[in-house]
Amino acid sequence: METDPQFLIRQLDEALGSGAHTEARGILNDMHPADVAEAFAKMKAVQRSVLVSLYDDEELASFIEYLPLADAVDVLDGLPDQLQASVFHELPDDHIVDLLQEMEPAQQRDSIELLSDEKKEKAEDLLKFPDDSAGGRMTTAFASVRVDMTVGDAIHALERVKEDTELLARIYVLDRNDRLLGKVRLRDLTFSEHDVRIRDIMDDEMLAVNAFADQEDAVQMMAKYDLMAVPVVNGSMQVLGVITHDDALDIQEEETTEDIEMQSGIVGSTADEAYLKASVADHLKRRLGWVMVLALLAIVSGFVLHSFSGELGKAIILAIYMPMVVAAGGNTGGQAATMVIRAMSLGEIGPQAWLQVIWKEMRIGLLIGLATGLCIALQITLFMGFIVHPFQIWKVALTVAVSLATQITASTVIGAALPMLAKMAKLDPAVVATPAITTMVDVTGLFIYFTCAKLVLGI
Amino acid sequence: METDPQFLIRQLDEALGSGAHTEARGILNDMHPADVAEAFAKMKAVQRSVLVSLYDDEELASFIEYLPLADAVDVLDGLPDQLQASVFHELPDDHIVDLLQEMEPAQQRDSIELLSDEKKEKAEDLLKFPDDSAGGRMTTAFASVRVDMTVGDAIHALERVKEDTELLARIYVLDRNDRLLGKVRLRDLTFSEHDVRIRDIMDDEMLAVNAFADQEDAVQMMAKYDLMAVPVVNGSMQVLGVITHDDALDIQEEETTEDIEMQSGIVGSTADEAYLKASVADHLKRRLGWVMVLALLAIVSGFVLHSFSGELGKAIILAIYMPMVVAAGGNTGGQAATMVIRAMSLGEIGPQAWLQVIWKEMRIGLLIGLATGLCIALQITLFMGFIVHPFQIWKVALTVAVSLATQITASTVIGAALPMLAKMAKLDPAVVATPAITTMVDVTGLFIYFTCAKLVLGI
Repeated sequence: METDPQFLIRQLDEALGSGAHTEARGILNDMHPADVAEAFAKMKAVQRSVLVSLYDDEELASFIEYLPLADAVDVLDGLPDQLQASVFHELPDDHIVDLLQEMEPAQQRDSIELLSDEKKEKAEDLLKFPDDSAGGRMTTAFASVRVDMTVGDAIHALERVKEDTELLARIYVLDRNDRLLGKVRLRDLTFSEHDVRIRDIMDDEMLAVNAFADQEDAVQMMAKYDLMAVPVVNGSMQVLGVITHDDALDIQEEETTEDIEMQSGIVGSTADEAYLKASVADHLKRRLGWVMVLALLAIVSGFVLHSFSGELGKAIILAIYMPMVVAAGGNTGGQAATMVIRAMSLGEIGPQAWLQVIWKEMRIGLLIGLATGLCIALQITLFMGFIVHPFQIWKVALTVAVSLATQITASTVIGAALPMLAKMAKLDPAVVATPAITTMVDVTGLFIYFTCAKLVLGI
Repeated sequence: METDPQFLIRQLDEALGSGAHTEARGILNDMHPADVAEAFAKMKAVQRSVLVSLYDDEELASFIEYLPLADAVDVLDGLPDQLQASVFHELPDDHIVDLLQEMEPAQQRDSIELLSDEKKEKAEDLLKFPDDSAGGRMTTAFASVRVDMTVGDAIHALERVKEDTELLARIYVLDRNDRLLGKVRLRDLTFSEHDVRIRDIMDDEMLAVNAFADQEDAVQMMAKYDLMAVPVVNGSMQVLGVITHDDALDIQEEETTEDIEMQSGIVGSTADEAYLKASVADHLKRRLGWVMVLALLAIVSGFVLHSFSGELGKAIILAIYMPMVVAAGGNTGGQAATMVIRAMSLGEIGPQAWLQVIWKEMRIGLLIGLATGLCIALQITLFMGFIVHPFQIWKVALTVAVSLATQITASTVIGAALPMLAKMAKLDPAVVATPAITTMVDVTGLFIYFTCAKLVLGI
């Protein structure tokens, strides 16, 4: 891997494109499977099947591990049963489960039949956990010793995994019923006398997540305690598996994408579907819903505006500042919602802090509102003299400034409050999409603006 | 750590609050420093200083490692010089640098003077790298062997780090000039004859990031290749340090927060400032700018609306659907921008894909536009007969549907194009804040709407 991966990707693509199979095979030897997976994403079907045919069983398995799940399932679907079975033999259990979860029911049934009895049983156990739970995400490969073993027994018991550096980086200590009691380090075993009890050298750290907990909880725990892996347990604290550092990065990425998209009114999850790979129909499914709902809700703003059309007709200068007052609400409400949602998803604030949050946002909103209102009042006084007739310029400035400040303060508080209300209702705070807040504060903005205008301008 | 951390946090808080120092000291023994750090965030100044006084040097250092940087700097500032010096002695180099970067210049100068000569030199080297570069984030502690060593030499050379499981999990192979050649695993050393050359058992994997590269590049590489750590090199491929899995999670979290906030029109970075800890003034600094700029820009929409006030006066039914047409643009433009920005930040699409993206978004926009337009045309035909006078109902329906479809298509394409333009101009795509897109498409929306109305209704 001394060569630039992008160069190799291009080389491979050309070799496959021109039918130079022997050359392609040579290039593959120099490539990391992650780079081959990147190249694969951009290949046509013919090149893809040639590529797959160049790999032996073991290579194919390690390549499939780096493919997005949807691609991996496609590849498996095209393999003869026997080859598929030997790929499954090479793949780790948790990855097999991820693949099975991605498959259509018929393919899933067929694939399960190709697993060895041991793998089949494990897969069926793991399939019971929801896709995005810690149990659905864990790997079942981990090293453990019993608390009543001696160091000599433990070293003997770990013999079978001695090839696996990854596993030996964390060894869990269990009681007779597989319940977690703590962990022990390889070097503590290496440098202890063989007749010392595990009980006397173990670290009784018991950080673990429940198998049915959200996969995000596992990542938050790993980030907080700087863990390389976190054990996944059932209700009786029996260790079922572990979530490791490389899963953590993937989980964090997926969960953040989901939050970001949800907040922009995009529903569902990308799972493993990359932007370009998702079809137009896939995109529609995720984006049309909110757009439609919000369009219908915007009729409310329309009726409010319509009801004030008399005032607008009498003071047409109001038209110039109406979009500003309305939009400023969306902008500040959106900012407040973003900050609060992010702070909640990072675990910085919980529901018990809601009064503090509202109090903080109220002050922030008021100050942003006053500053912006003052700035616009100045703009009106300095530059708009030519158009305010028949009203006194200070009255127009006062109308816009007061309604702007009120709208900004109200929207900031609404934007902060709604995600917290969602959380209290046990919903994901990010479900309060920014566009929904915008649509809502459009209505308050029109009310505030025209009410101020009626009071100050006397229309 | 067998007890619930939240329970211990409350216990500690009570003990410190009531002056029960001995009891507090006992509780601290049972707590993970990460949990103490969590409790510390909510403590008053008095409790904080009591807590700090209960720790010995070594404990204080490991506690400080888990504190947000701003808090950690405060704690250090309050310590006598000698204690500060011994805390620095315990802390890893990269964390010292993070702390120094967080300090005011005066405190930074004083603190550097308290470092041992060796640490001072290292810190000064590391301070040369920008805060958010791979070099600014790496730890300088890593295990390495020379390529021309025998296994026996290597094991002897690694003697000094044998206590550190973390370090031995990855051993880099360097040439005589400290340049990276590959890596070797501890078990390959353990199970090889002592006279075998490192050259013959090493893995020539050379994945590394440049010290001046963005810290995000390091994380993307770790996620792609499932690495536990990535070496940080200079231009001559000399290894300067490593970025490890626990840094990766923190970096990913920070970078995502920055992206999310930037996209909502919040500038600057939170660094380590939690939502509640940041003062109202801090929040203002980050949020006021865009709100002000966008308010001023909204005057453009205002003038456009004002210029169409004649048309609005002649067909007041238009008021009802105006907010909808305008808002639908903001919603769909925001969705498109979010998807494109996220896909770019995950490395799914590069600038070379811009034609594909525009083509995809154009189709998506058109379909969302047609579906929404059709739905609203239906709503008008069925329910709005009472208000459309003096216009024919189908003409009103046609006006709204066509302008809605056009606005949605145009906004979707604009929302997707702007982040890509930003990227081409070497800016962070997320700099194209959704509120800015909304403000921009407010203008197109008004134009499209009233132009359609003039054409179809003949006003």
